[in-house]
Amino acid sequence: MLTAKGKATRDRIVAAAALEIRERGIAAVTLDDVGRRSRTGKSQLFHYFPDGKEQLLLAVAEREAERVIEDQEPQLGQLTSWDAWQDWRDVLVEKYRRQGVHCPLGVLITEIGRHTPAAQVVTGKLLTQWQQALQAGIHQMQAAGEIRADVDANRAAGALMAAIQGGVAILMSSGSAQHLEYALDLCLDYLRVKTS
Amino acid sequence: MLTAKGKATRDRIVAAAALEIRERGIAAVTLDDVGRRSRTGKSQLFHYFPDGKEQLLLAVAEREAERVIEDQEPQLGQLTSWDAWQDWRDVLVEKYRRQGVHCPLGVLITEIGRHTPAAQVVTGKLLTQWQQALQAGIHQMQAAGEIRADVDANRAAGALMAAIQGGVAILMSSGSAQHLEYALDLCLDYLRVKTS
Repeated sequence: MLTAKGKATRDRIVAAAALEIRERGIAAVTLDDVGRRSRTGKSQLFHYFPDGKEQLLLAVAEREAERVIEDQEPQLGQLTSWDAWQDWRDVLVEKYRRQGVHCPLGVLITEIGRHTPAAQVVTGKLLTQWQQALQAGIHQMQAAGEIRADVDANRAAGALMAAIQGGVAILMSSGSAQHLEYALDLCLDYLRVKTS
Repeated sequence: MLTAKGKATRDRIVAAAALEIRERGIAAVTLDDVGRRSRTGKSQLFHYFPDGKEQLLLAVAEREAERVIEDQEPQLGQLTSWDAWQDWRDVLVEKYRRQGVHCPLGVLITEIGRHTPAAQVVTGKLLTQWQQALQAGIHQMQAAGEIRADVDANRAAGALMAAIQGGVAILMSSGSAQHLEYALDLCLDYLRVKTS
């Protein structure tokens, strides 16, 4: 376990590395650059990341995954009305439209190796956390009588996740957010249907 | 323009390259391997692909993109009843379940460079063709009174495309087809709704 001060130092290193990578690309960034930006000496860097750049990249990937959720807050955590769902939808589309073809997390996952256990833990955890937040929102709307009781919240939240991932993937190859919007809107329209 | 015989030779080279790449991976395959498998001499190979391996890879990518559509036929081309839609859905899920984490087209697109114009033409064309087939299916079902007239066929087909791409992306990282199934089922359930 790290002390509070140790955790603060580690966070500062990870934040500096994340910024360097976002600004200059993963290939160009060295441990020296990260040390300079975070005002950390080499021995401190290796104290927190004894395995070097690879271990640091994984920590940055975890941080970028957390940001994907944070960027959707507070909307994602309070999906208690149709207005709230619409706000969340708009925030999400805007986030990815602004991001365009450059996905900070995707770059890191590709570098770490998409099929490595370490990368799969990061993406798996993000997917689970995101889907659970959507599922909680659907449950809350069902409790309020706004979504039909016969909607399977787990399946619908999973479908929303696929729609988002696919919409973003198409945005990253085409530059257009249209598919993301169509997919989100169809899912929300489905949830809004009164009787099946 | 190629003569019929020229086209047949070129097709044989591309098919041989596709098989070699599927079996042994893109990095291991050389032009010599492709020549041997397609029974084509080096001078013939360079007649059809003067720019070498890169140009051949692009032709293989085009071929693999065509196969993505072919693998869904005849179901994709005759979406004229709910049974037909369900059959198409099952064929698609089964195709990707069998394929698992290895996407022959994805490997080629990554190698060519996801953001290069050449790769974007291949993926863009596939996306358009696929989406148009789904849109035609929705139109046919609307003409038959099976899908509500107020459904925007273009938007719904676009949403289906995002759902499929996202479901397949999650399958490729998790190994499970669940998200693909949830997403397809939600879209089809939405299309089946009688009144909005």
